[in-house]
Amino acid sequence: MRNAFLLALLLPGPAFAQSAVAPIDAVDPMIGTAGEGHTFPGATAPFGMVQLSPDTDTGCEIRACYGHAAGYRYEDPTIQGFSHTHFSGAGHSDLGDVLVAPQAGTARLDPGDPAKPGSGYRSRFDHASETARPGYYAVTLADGGIRAELTAGTRTGVHRYTFPAGTPAHLVIDLRSSLYNYPGKILWSGLHLRPDGTLTGFRETRGWAPGRKLYFAMRFSAPLTGHGFVDRDAAVTYKGFQGPGRGSEAVAEKLGKALEAQLDFGTLAAPLEVKVALSGVDEAGAVANLEAEAGGFDAIRARTAAAWTQALGAVEIAAPAPMRRTVYTALYHALLAPSVWSDADGRYRGPDDQVHRADGFTFRSTFSLWDTFRAEHPLLTLVQPTQTTVDVVRSLVASRRFSPDGILPVWQFAGRETWTMIGYHAAPVIADAYLKGIRGFDADAALDAMVASADYAPYGGLGDYIARGYVPIDKEPEAASKTVEYAYDDWTIARMARAMGRDAIAARFEKRAANWRNSFDTKTGWLRARLSSGAFRTPFDPTAINYGSDYTEGNAWQYSWFMPQDQAGLFRLLGGDAKAIAKLDAMFDYDNSKLDYSHAEDIAGLIGQYIHGNEPSHHVAYLYDYAGAPWRTQERLAQIVASQYKPTPDGLAGNDDLGQMSAWLVFTALGFYPVAPGSNEYVIGRPFVDRATLNLPDGKRFIVVADGLSATNRYIAAVTLNGVPLARSYLRDAELRAGGELRFTMAATPNKGWATGRAARPFSMTAR
Amino acid sequence: MRNAFLLALLLPGPAFAQSAVAPIDAVDPMIGTAGEGHTFPGATAPFGMVQLSPDTDTGCEIRACYGHAAGYRYEDPTIQGFSHTHFSGAGHSDLGDVLVAPQAGTARLDPGDPAKPGSGYRSRFDHASETARPGYYAVTLADGGIRAELTAGTRTGVHRYTFPAGTPAHLVIDLRSSLYNYPGKILWSGLHLRPDGTLTGFRETRGWAPGRKLYFAMRFSAPLTGHGFVDRDAAVTYKGFQGPGRGSEAVAEKLGKALEAQLDFGTLAAPLEVKVALSGVDEAGAVANLEAEAGGFDAIRARTAAAWTQALGAVEIAAPAPMRRTVYTALYHALLAPSVWSDADGRYRGPDDQVHRADGFTFRSTFSLWDTFRAEHPLLTLVQPTQTTVDVVRSLVASRRFSPDGILPVWQFAGRETWTMIGYHAAPVIADAYLKGIRGFDADAALDAMVASADYAPYGGLGDYIARGYVPIDKEPEAASKTVEYAYDDWTIARMARAMGRDAIAARFEKRAANWRNSFDTKTGWLRARLSSGAFRTPFDPTAINYGSDYTEGNAWQYSWFMPQDQAGLFRLLGGDAKAIAKLDAMFDYDNSKLDYSHAEDIAGLIGQYIHGNEPSHHVAYLYDYAGAPWRTQERLAQIVASQYKPTPDGLAGNDDLGQMSAWLVFTALGFYPVAPGSNEYVIGRPFVDRATLNLPDGKRFIVVADGLSATNRYIAAVTLNGVPLARSYLRDAELRAGGELRFTMAATPNKGWATGRAARPFSMTAR
Repeated sequence: MRNAFLLALLLPGPAFAQSAVAPIDAVDPMIGTAGEGHTFPGATAPFGMVQLSPDTDTGCEIRACYGHAAGYRYEDPTIQGFSHTHFSGAGHSDLGDVLVAPQAGTARLDPGDPAKPGSGYRSRFDHASETARPGYYAVTLADGGIRAELTAGTRTGVHRYTFPAGTPAHLVIDLRSSLYNYPGKILWSGLHLRPDGTLTGFRETRGWAPGRKLYFAMRFSAPLTGHGFVDRDAAVTYKGFQGPGRGSEAVAEKLGKALEAQLDFGTLAAPLEVKVALSGVDEAGAVANLEAEAGGFDAIRARTAAAWTQALGAVEIAAPAPMRRTVYTALYHALLAPSVWSDADGRYRGPDDQVHRADGFTFRSTFSLWDTFRAEHPLLTLVQPTQTTVDVVRSLVASRRFSPDGILPVWQFAGRETWTMIGYHAAPVIADAYLKGIRGFDADAALDAMVASADYAPYGGLGDYIARGYVPIDKEPEAASKTVEYAYDDWTIARMARAMGRDAIAARFEKRAANWRNSFDTKTGWLRARLSSGAFRTPFDPTAINYGSDYTEGNAWQYSWFMPQDQAGLFRLLGGDAKAIAKLDAMFDYDNSKLDYSHAEDIAGLIGQYIHGNEPSHHVAYLYDYAGAPWRTQERLAQIVASQYKPTPDGLAGNDDLGQMSAWLVFTALGFYPVAPGSNEYVIGRPFVDRATLNLPDGKRFIVVADGLSATNRYIAAVTLNGVPLARSYLRDAELRAGGELRFTMAATPNKGWATGRAARPFSMTAR
Repeated sequence: MRNAFLLALLLPGPAFAQSAVAPIDAVDPMIGTAGEGHTFPGATAPFGMVQLSPDTDTGCEIRACYGHAAGYRYEDPTIQGFSHTHFSGAGHSDLGDVLVAPQAGTARLDPGDPAKPGSGYRSRFDHASETARPGYYAVTLADGGIRAELTAGTRTGVHRYTFPAGTPAHLVIDLRSSLYNYPGKILWSGLHLRPDGTLTGFRETRGWAPGRKLYFAMRFSAPLTGHGFVDRDAAVTYKGFQGPGRGSEAVAEKLGKALEAQLDFGTLAAPLEVKVALSGVDEAGAVANLEAEAGGFDAIRARTAAAWTQALGAVEIAAPAPMRRTVYTALYHALLAPSVWSDADGRYRGPDDQVHRADGFTFRSTFSLWDTFRAEHPLLTLVQPTQTTVDVVRSLVASRRFSPDGILPVWQFAGRETWTMIGYHAAPVIADAYLKGIRGFDADAALDAMVASADYAPYGGLGDYIARGYVPIDKEPEAASKTVEYAYDDWTIARMARAMGRDAIAARFEKRAANWRNSFDTKTGWLRARLSSGAFRTPFDPTAINYGSDYTEGNAWQYSWFMPQDQAGLFRLLGGDAKAIAKLDAMFDYDNSKLDYSHAEDIAGLIGQYIHGNEPSHHVAYLYDYAGAPWRTQERLAQIVASQYKPTPDGLAGNDDLGQMSAWLVFTALGFYPVAPGSNEYVIGRPFVDRATLNLPDGKRFIVVADGLSATNRYIAAVTLNGVPLARSYLRDAELRAGGELRFTMAATPNKGWATGRAARPFSMTAR
């Protein structure tokens, strides 16, 4: 019976899936470039080290910078140039390295005023001239009449510029340009024109990552007819002795804090290709990375398109075009980070700023773990179970080995720790992978790293947390959030330790996993910050959101739900299922009309006190399942998807946060969500696509079908798993990985009897 | 006959040589620490990467800095601390890295005011408490009552501090401190306390060498009882997020531009040893260098003493104690640079700021080539013919390979080019070694590098020099000096090319070697700067000395003698031997009473217009030999040695210039000098020691004996080489290397008949 059923799955799907455009053509990288998304539209390979993308504005002070965290804002009228590194959806920023500004006729060395065309190297542009596809971006720079195309391999970016016929072609490389470019950010930089015509260089910056080093190598399809290296720094006390070419800018090497290169190519008969490789190790590493990726623009574009086709092919989706576009773009955004950081030869610059070698894996960085432990990493365990997930775990463990503090990354990029956000959420990422059976890393070293991170007293009030069972707010800010997130992380450590037979560790951390209770005010029903004295801090306002307050980018409304390891315990404290449901409803239905959160950058996408634009809310809509009311989850999901995601530039309600906002949608579209990574369970919501196939290793396929799905048919009437009715509101990870079919029958009215019983509810409501 | 004679040489020398103190005890590193010498008194191994030495003052503006180029001035009343890198005798400066200031009782973080004892970490000291020996320095820091001892291995320095009993011991590491510390010099720095108690760190500086990186690792004989890392930079726009230990200084890592570490040790029962290793590669390199040199203070001190005994043993000297002390100290100063720059594992940071590996040699840096090509490198071909000389040539060629400009070093340290002084004097260094038969390097690559350097148009007016045969002063400063020095360098290239059978190169550069004539004004008899028009620049004053003028740190008086490849040609232009002698006498006897050279730092040690304190004069006293009047050379040398060298702190009349001033004395004391490196000849002056033995490879010994030498007997009456009368005023290099005996008979009256004939005169006076 079962075998015959599986055989049937191999037959072709419905006709409308066949006729849809290829996944790569369904992706629209412009989604999220307006509004709050902070995504970039430029060219990148899956998890690529290079994100080659237009910067519309970089010259901004801190608050104005926020909107330009990814360099590009859809509503800006001009493009300054194209730089090689960008975060996808970060709420803080840096990068924008090695800005290239093509210039026709006259080379200008300053970006100029957007309101004064021709005042600098920036140019006006029209969205009608733009094309953005995975691994490809093109735009016409109107002021110079230059057609600019970008593509990227893993460690290279390739620019192709078509200059107007008969006009001298120039490039300006502005090493002063950067995102979040505070005064004093550029510590040192260098330009070096090698005898073979390769331009190499480097930059050291004091930005979000302190003392970050980035090296580059650049080759051109046409010979230079001239070059000038200029130092725009007027405040050099001691200039040293003059090297060869004194009085000229045509020197072979220049060092300084405000360097620019002007490169002249004369009048070109063919488009100019500029191939650029990056390295975190050294200039030789950049040259080797450049040579490791053979070919020019078209070859690299084709290879990267093939890589995207393969990566996006992990999920086959059938849905109406707008939803399909939205979900495939979400999958695309989920496949950008953690990005490659080691060189082609395996060397990388680690958290100690020293060069190490990744032996047998590719070192990844850009870990936005407070965001991504929730759904992004669980998604990667399904769509990139070996390549990326194993790399991620090995990179986290290697990072801990070379961490000056001896702990796992918190928010790391370019190999450097930034200490942004809270928790030790590398622990759930590793535990989730291990518990799902993913191997290929040293589990003992990983567990040791998790324990060391959880026991490191100087970090985030952990000394007090360990001693008292909660983080006291008079000693450490954001104490309420830290207490509950630490307790969850502790639970994941315990789960992994138990699975490994490391029972002493398991027992200790199982005990710590209950610490969320120590910061929960049972009288009021809120998670609250406590003082060292044991008293809850007053005054207390569950709607207050302030940086450095009792909570992390949130308030009691959001944080009072964060105990994924023990929702049963929470619900008991709240007084049972009905009261939990009432409180969930109160959250979604809260009248915000008298509140102002404009001071808190990350607070966007509000549905009452549910804030989809930031992560602490992300699991909350699924909690109705825990209370035995899955139809209410189904309603809320419809409300969220409809209001928070659109296939347009302003289509993301909040920062994509390195794929977390997007991974939420990919899971939700498929009909389930990992509320408690480490539990090996996915909580069933409802599907938003007609059909989806997860292509798993060894040719296994897990197929989701939503029979009768429509705007009206938004409720689950029935569910079968491999043809057998499914009476519970969760799926097991092993069920997915085995392959099979999950079939939903959708209806216009809720099935209030499905999965209501206690045994049918997700993890922690029953002992598993 | 000859064999019997050589056998006799193996017999013991005169009794007074037996009774003298060992060479290592004859060295006084305090010589040159007052006056103009710019030497340092601290501890270093032969050619060591580490020069661990007291800094009496670092907080100075540019002019005041000059006197503190080596960190220590004998007349200063206080010591700030002990830093790990120093130049020996440079006229410009940098370094002073990783200052350690021991503190008893209270730790102070600023150096304080020398006039206010206790106002900072500096301490008063008394020279009576000082001991300075090769590889060992000690002083009592009076304010804290701390006995400080220093020693050094090749890549390590070891401090030993004996604190007063019962007083808490602290160290302050001040990464802000530096020599020539202009505002903005410290680009970035880091401190990192590793779990095993090793303190590592780094500093990047924009000083004389642009963008220099230095890493260190430090271990302590007693455990830390506490530590604090502080950033004294008040002007940080963006501080980033706070890592573990927020609000505390006891962090594991700190990065910034103005860092200090306070290290606490409590009350110690035993002296505190602090072992520090440096690396130009990375912190791991520093740790490996630290571990490569086993043992603590006493073990390293003993090994370095043995190394000095061996190195100084290259020359055995018998002389009255003051002269012996002066000459052995000169030999010591000649054995400090070019110093080791590669790590124990062979890796080094090269001129391109990238890390390379020295395969089969030790990479050396600190090349003060404009100074040292004259006598320092020729001396090394005799006292360090294999180890150092082969390293030097290989390092020069490797530097050219990784030079951004593709040329040999000019003035390089820490692997980085500074573009200080003029010429391509790596060429004579390499040619001199090659022509003397020293092998062990790729001669073809070396010659290619020499030619590339000589043909690199952007450097120092070379484009015009090649086109016109001279450097035009309206296009390039110091044109007269450049023209004659280039012509000499060209001659050395030609000599080496001819010896290698590379005849086309030889012919081309032989022609260039005559270019000195193109800048010589035959009407006035002076070397003068010419304009592009061909006219000599006016006004002209042969005594004028100005930076950036027609000459380099000199004037027409000194530079009109610089054509070592063709002194015969010069003398003809001057009108013959008698006129040449008259002009030499006019130079030495010039009345300077109406001149003021105080604006030119390097102009010191004047005897008329002969300026022994700077290099352009160094060969001039030997030129009487060329005119057939060696007795006049003998007189002038007595005058120079008596007035320019003393066995006292102010015993050097000018900057030692990385051994050149000292190498001049070592050669001169032995009775001969390499006027024209590349000629394989040494011009005979007169000996200043009773007996000297050059210990050469394969057990060969070249012995110099000065029979009857005394203050009165200052003339050569007769000379024999291996028992045979020597009628010429020069020695051949092959004669030295074969071993043998050069015996002078000294007398109170000149022998005006010796070596007067043309055939008896040195190179270029006759065709050889």
